[in-house]
Amino acid sequence: MASVAASVEAIVQAAGPHVPVLLARVEERLVELAGGHGPVLAEHAGATIAAGGKRLRPLLVLLAAGPPGAEAPAIVPAAAAVELVHSATLVHDDVLDSASLRRGLPTVWATGGRALAVATGDLLFSRAFSELAATGSVASVRALSRASSALAEGELLQRQDAWNAAVAVDRYLYRCELKTARLFEASCELGALAAGRQNGTVARLGAFGRGVGLAFQLLDDVLDVSGSASNTGKHRGTDLLDGTVTLPLILARERDAELAGMDLRREIVTPEQAEALCERIEATGALVDAQARALAIVAEAKVQLNGLALEGGQRTALELVADSVVDRQS
Amino acid sequence: MASVAASVEAIVQAAGPHVPVLLARVEERLVELAGGHGPVLAEHAGATIAAGGKRLRPLLVLLAAGPPGAEAPAIVPAAAAVELVHSATLVHDDVLDSASLRRGLPTVWATGGRALAVATGDLLFSRAFSELAATGSVASVRALSRASSALAEGELLQRQDAWNAAVAVDRYLYRCELKTARLFEASCELGALAAGRQNGTVARLGAFGRGVGLAFQLLDDVLDVSGSASNTGKHRGTDLLDGTVTLPLILARERDAELAGMDLRREIVTPEQAEALCERIEATGALVDAQARALAIVAEAKVQLNGLALEGGQRTALELVADSVVDRQS
Repeated sequence: MASVAASVEAIVQAAGPHVPVLLARVEERLVELAGGHGPVLAEHAGATIAAGGKRLRPLLVLLAAGPPGAEAPAIVPAAAAVELVHSATLVHDDVLDSASLRRGLPTVWATGGRALAVATGDLLFSRAFSELAATGSVASVRALSRASSALAEGELLQRQDAWNAAVAVDRYLYRCELKTARLFEASCELGALAAGRQNGTVARLGAFGRGVGLAFQLLDDVLDVSGSASNTGKHRGTDLLDGTVTLPLILARERDAELAGMDLRREIVTPEQAEALCERIEATGALVDAQARALAIVAEAKVQLNGLALEGGQRTALELVADSVVDRQS
Repeated sequence: MASVAASVEAIVQAAGPHVPVLLARVEERLVELAGGHGPVLAEHAGATIAAGGKRLRPLLVLLAAGPPGAEAPAIVPAAAAVELVHSATLVHDDVLDSASLRRGLPTVWATGGRALAVATGDLLFSRAFSELAATGSVASVRALSRASSALAEGELLQRQDAWNAAVAVDRYLYRCELKTARLFEASCELGALAAGRQNGTVARLGAFGRGVGLAFQLLDDVLDVSGSASNTGKHRGTDLLDGTVTLPLILARERDAELAGMDLRREIVTPEQAEALCERIEATGALVDAQARALAIVAEAKVQLNGLALEGGQRTALELVADSVVDRQS
């Protein structure tokens, strides 16, 4: 994510030089964890990890832990574990979507087939729990497994609601919570737990993470309608072509009666039709409103940090991440 | 499994009346755990659980725990967790195999499709770790996640070696270890851990479970070649049609040069051809030898129990389970 990358300097400036050091150790650990289960899995799990991504969840683990957490032995394993669960979900999603490319690289599904992709995802899941259990924190394992259950439920909800343009805003938000916000929440909880923080602080940092995750998903959905392919790496309206009904479309339907009467599955079949629908959604002002909603959620999330005893620039760093999530073009 | 069911009385006689009581509580807990994540998942996860199975892994958890374990609050969650991981694997296997039926009932893949089946499996995995983490035993979570990683690796190994009749016995045994034995090992470890046993005892009971699991898989593979559809619920030679090369075929190829020269993928396509190949394998004496190997593994597994301080009829009950695994027709 270009904008998060651009703000990494500012985040490090605020949080301290231990953050890039730990992030590098997380990368090393991810490579180790992807290996060690036979050459085939090592190749595909390794490729999945190496394909990278924003590493936003590990970053949240480190920032929620704060400077004292940097010393905690559980911090790197916790950061690696959340990224493994995230990666596992992506590999399985690609099976469900029969997706050939992710982040511009061939998916495990494309290179190795369905069986390999399902097994690779299962392995990444298992390794995540193994890594986290090794830290000795039962509370962390529980937090991660709650998030991982939510991910599975969210993925299903999305498929269940596919092509149903009449889905309500609340149900859409609940889906975002399951699909995205809960793992962000767990990331902050895991960081706080690794740093040995009190229950109240763990819960508040978790609530912060949940808001950031929710806003992140909302903005992803806005970008799918507004973003240009050169920024996001995919064409506008891919969600629409997949039948995934997101907030921009839900809001636009309330404002444009003809659009509300449209049958997505029949009328939005080509990339050109999706592009045209994106413009039509944008014309209703739905994108601006959806983005405003994401900004409001971030503002609310930041309130969770009030009154917490956070070290040095920790709060600033967390707020910068929250802002970067809604202030991005890809 | 008819024969295990038939010997349940003898097992209860030896182990004590707490076993059926706890098994009933495990069933209740499995139903609870399958629910609670939205109606769609509840339906399919619930159907998977309700479809039943031998519950051999939960039984091993209970028996390894012994009578004192019956009081331990971790025992039922541990037994439920191993069954959830087992069920998750079955649901994902059915996706990989595009299997319509399991235990005579439609699979999740068949009734709900690929997406639902992948998500259902993911949920069952997540719930297993969540349930186990709630017991507070980090050692248990580690044991289960090791087994779950092994399952993914074993599943892949099987697909990687598909149609390769020249696979070596050692590699076949390693695959069985990953696919089956490790979860049996974890089941015994979890039971022993729940009962608060010492590390040495946990390891020995784990090694016992591993042997029982290995023998179980060997016998499954023998039954695929020898068993009649009326006992096993499937036609002879389904593994052969799937390209899964198992011990009977490996041994038979060493004894029958013409069979060794056969190209499975081209020559064994119809159920009738598979049936004929089964008879040919049987004629080499390979089935008798494979079964003898399973019996030897069970005998070796039982040696692990020597010198352990096991309560009452606990040892007898464990030995009965070990015997039932190799003395069955389905």
